[in-house]
Amino acid sequence: MLEKIDLSKTITNADYKKSEKMLKPKLGELQRKAWDLKIPVILVFEGWHVSGMCEDINRFILSLDPRGYNFHTMTRPCYEELLKPFIVRFWSRIPVRGKIGVFDRSWYSRSITECLGEEKSERRMEKCLEEINYFERQLADDGYLIIKFFLHISEKEHKERFKELKKAGIPLLFEEYGKEMIHDLYFIGNYNKYLPSVEKLLEETDMPYAPWTVVEADDRNFATLKIMMTVIHALEASIEQATRTPAEKTLKYLDLEAQGIPQLNNSILEQINLSRKINADEYKASKKLYQQKLATLQYELFRIKRPMVVIFEGWDAAGKGGDIYRLVENLNPRLYRVVPVGSPNDTEKAHHYLWRFCEAIPKAGNITIFDRSWYGRVLVERVEGFCSEEEWKRAYREINEFEEILTQAGAIILKFWLHIDKETQLERFNSRQLDPEKKWKITAEDWRNRSRWEDYETAADEMLQKTGTMNAPWVVVESNDKRYSRIKVLKTVAETLEKEL
Amino acid sequence: MLEKIDLSKTITNADYKKSEKMLKPKLGELQRKAWDLKIPVILVFEGWHVSGMCEDINRFILSLDPRGYNFHTMTRPCYEELLKPFIVRFWSRIPVRGKIGVFDRSWYSRSITECLGEEKSERRMEKCLEEINYFERQLADDGYLIIKFFLHISEKEHKERFKELKKAGIPLLFEEYGKEMIHDLYFIGNYNKYLPSVEKLLEETDMPYAPWTVVEADDRNFATLKIMMTVIHALEASIEQATRTPAEKTLKYLDLEAQGIPQLNNSILEQINLSRKINADEYKASKKLYQQKLATLQYELFRIKRPMVVIFEGWDAAGKGGDIYRLVENLNPRLYRVVPVGSPNDTEKAHHYLWRFCEAIPKAGNITIFDRSWYGRVLVERVEGFCSEEEWKRAYREINEFEEILTQAGAIILKFWLHIDKETQLERFNSRQLDPEKKWKITAEDWRNRSRWEDYETAADEMLQKTGTMNAPWVVVESNDKRYSRIKVLKTVAETLEKEL
Repeated sequence: MLEKIDLSKTITNADYKKSEKMLKPKLGELQRKAWDLKIPVILVFEGWHVSGMCEDINRFILSLDPRGYNFHTMTRPCYEELLKPFIVRFWSRIPVRGKIGVFDRSWYSRSITECLGEEKSERRMEKCLEEINYFERQLADDGYLIIKFFLHISEKEHKERFKELKKAGIPLLFEEYGKEMIHDLYFIGNYNKYLPSVEKLLEETDMPYAPWTVVEADDRNFATLKIMMTVIHALEASIEQATRTPAEKTLKYLDLEAQGIPQLNNSILEQINLSRKINADEYKASKKLYQQKLATLQYELFRIKRPMVVIFEGWDAAGKGGDIYRLVENLNPRLYRVVPVGSPNDTEKAHHYLWRFCEAIPKAGNITIFDRSWYGRVLVERVEGFCSEEEWKRAYREINEFEEILTQAGAIILKFWLHIDKETQLERFNSRQLDPEKKWKITAEDWRNRSRWEDYETAADEMLQKTGTMNAPWVVVESNDKRYSRIKVLKTVAETLEKEL
Repeated sequence: MLEKIDLSKTITNADYKKSEKMLKPKLGELQRKAWDLKIPVILVFEGWHVSGMCEDINRFILSLDPRGYNFHTMTRPCYEELLKPFIVRFWSRIPVRGKIGVFDRSWYSRSITECLGEEKSERRMEKCLEEINYFERQLADDGYLIIKFFLHISEKEHKERFKELKKAGIPLLFEEYGKEMIHDLYFIGNYNKYLPSVEKLLEETDMPYAPWTVVEADDRNFATLKIMMTVIHALEASIEQATRTPAEKTLKYLDLEAQGIPQLNNSILEQINLSRKINADEYKASKKLYQQKLATLQYELFRIKRPMVVIFEGWDAAGKGGDIYRLVENLNPRLYRVVPVGSPNDTEKAHHYLWRFCEAIPKAGNITIFDRSWYGRVLVERVEGFCSEEEWKRAYREINEFEEILTQAGAIILKFWLHIDKETQLERFNSRQLDPEKKWKITAEDWRNRSRWEDYETAADEMLQKTGTMNAPWVVVESNDKRYSRIKVLKTVAETLEKEL
């Protein structure tokens, strides 16, 4: 891909000035239009580490309104970021709808730098690429416009620029980090060593929804203009598409079933035996036993540095809060975290729906317990129509990929569906309403949800079937009897940890 | 303070259970009330590092609704955090109004750990304490309820618990960080060495608006109950105060002038000579000269690791955007950032007004350019009545303190007021409205602001007088002539950097 590029193209300063004068207002105008249409844009800049990238990027971003973009220089991750899956720190930096995220270095050079010289670096690199492809495809599906540039220079130019920088005493970005980065510096300073890794990366990630543009950067005028023109064309196409009427849009997901997602068979939930219960004595003894086990196991998890994700979904009043309470009652709060998930706020709504969970992904060695979760997409958002049919149908695959990324990073995932029948829910609603201490727990929304029981049941059933995977299984918890429910949760978590550790 | 504490108090398990049963619902109820009243609460937990704090905290937070609190374990700062002033990373974690921020370890143990063994550690410690006192007082003034606990145990108990933990193989928090933390571990494991630092800290930061409660923690039942009772009392008092009618509230800031803030004399702005201008040739030459200087100076700043803050305030259409454009035109985008400040979003409104600027505070070696800033508090918020008189009057001191913290961390601060007269503004508004490429720049809000010119003038004048400090001076830029304005800004920044570096 790179070797055939003709690097001899140049543009004079006078011609550059003239073109810039025409392109700048155009870019400003398109930026404002994309903003109005709430099109989020991701611009990735990669290239040789002395390719004059900074200068080109600066000339380019000067044509943008600073209110409309965020600039990210992706360098060494901080300690906490290293304890989470590779792609999470990039997920957390995606722009809100309508804004432009400019990435000076990105998941691409980070994947090379971070896998370099590691044991099993090839396997790690493959995993990174998989995470990257999931990431970009999911964003593109959600309407993100992704434009990726590789600023290419010749070996000769590379050497000269390196010398120039040294002479002028201009510090390279990573010098900020001192000795730790010398290794990286050596690598990226070595043209012939770096080239094959880059070639491979570009080829494997050049996707129709997120294509690479190689920019001939020996001549800086040429490079800047090519960047501007490419962004202009991409923005125009994207704006044109966004302003088409829905009928004209091509349906992207005609045949989901063909993509390897299993067919919907008969109901899982119908087969659940809700009459299971246990008595008070057994409850007390089992609770003590498993809580003690968990208190020890959490330190074991911490020691071997694996993260754990426990998800609670289920009917209103099925007892999620109570089950979680018993689960964490004897744990060290430094190592677990309960994350209640309600309806998204405005900022969250202005991002991809998975974005808001990035912060809560547990660090290696820690446990995050989700009281409701990303499954809201295929439950409440599906049933109440908060997202389109295309969106929730696509979500099964997206969620499976999202959880796969967690598993790849060593995460132990458990997902509980707390199941009760309609009568039990009614009893609990009524008793809550009569209890002055619990009255606040029951709202009009709970009653409204209840009135759509059958729709939720269908959605839950489809979710259980399409997202129960080997590494992230669903466990249906019979919860008509609260004691039974609590012990089953405690026991499942304890036994899973024992098995995995 | 600590030595006189009677640590022999105990409570039996049976008594504990009984009390807990009564206190828990009470705490839940008060939490919901504080939530409704939008009272933000900060709970700080400090104590001996084997004081059973985790267990006590866990028993306490189990009585709270997880939706209503955030739990922060404050350990080693990440690389990026170390490049900003000490207090910023805590500022950025304050809870939104109505929620509780629980800090397991806080700015207190971090100040001890981070100053320990450093050169000039005493001077550094003093600076930390100053930052802490500003921080807590500003939050308290803004309605934050601050409750601080020190969990105290005897030397004997300390030794025993250390042994116990080791025997059970329970990892200490900082073991996560490996060898780097051994130094800290030694110190905090050493009772007699740690005690005097802690004593001093508690004494110097025991404020009426943020008092310390020493918790006798030899007995865990006693400790948990004391924590619960203290929070209950503090919440009750705070809720009671919040529900009083305004007339009953005591005015906190009767005499601002007595606090050392200079009297308002005659107008600064009236003395500005707006007829200054320069010709096109001089403009071109000077622009080139200073832009080249700046391109070099920014690397110098990076090398000596000092941050820089440049603030632009001024009349609408005074040319802030154009001045900023020329300022950054030749800079490396990795080392500067332009931060446009508009009206706060909902999340920002639900915090102290200074909170939203934390993220944009430049790292050491970097430059942040604010297009409008925290001065909005004493300009637009004052004039439009978006905050109370008490609030904007208090803000002069708060802003001076905020900037002092930046200066202490080595920041170079420059603040520009771009000044034009009323006629020039009208001309520019009109010409913008006629230019199809610039029409979007002018909105109804601009016209509305213009109609309150005199109020803004008064506010700007008072701001210039009360917040112009030695280390963070205001520079009024005569901007009727755009060329003059741009060169004055470029020249001032370049010369300030030359002087400081």
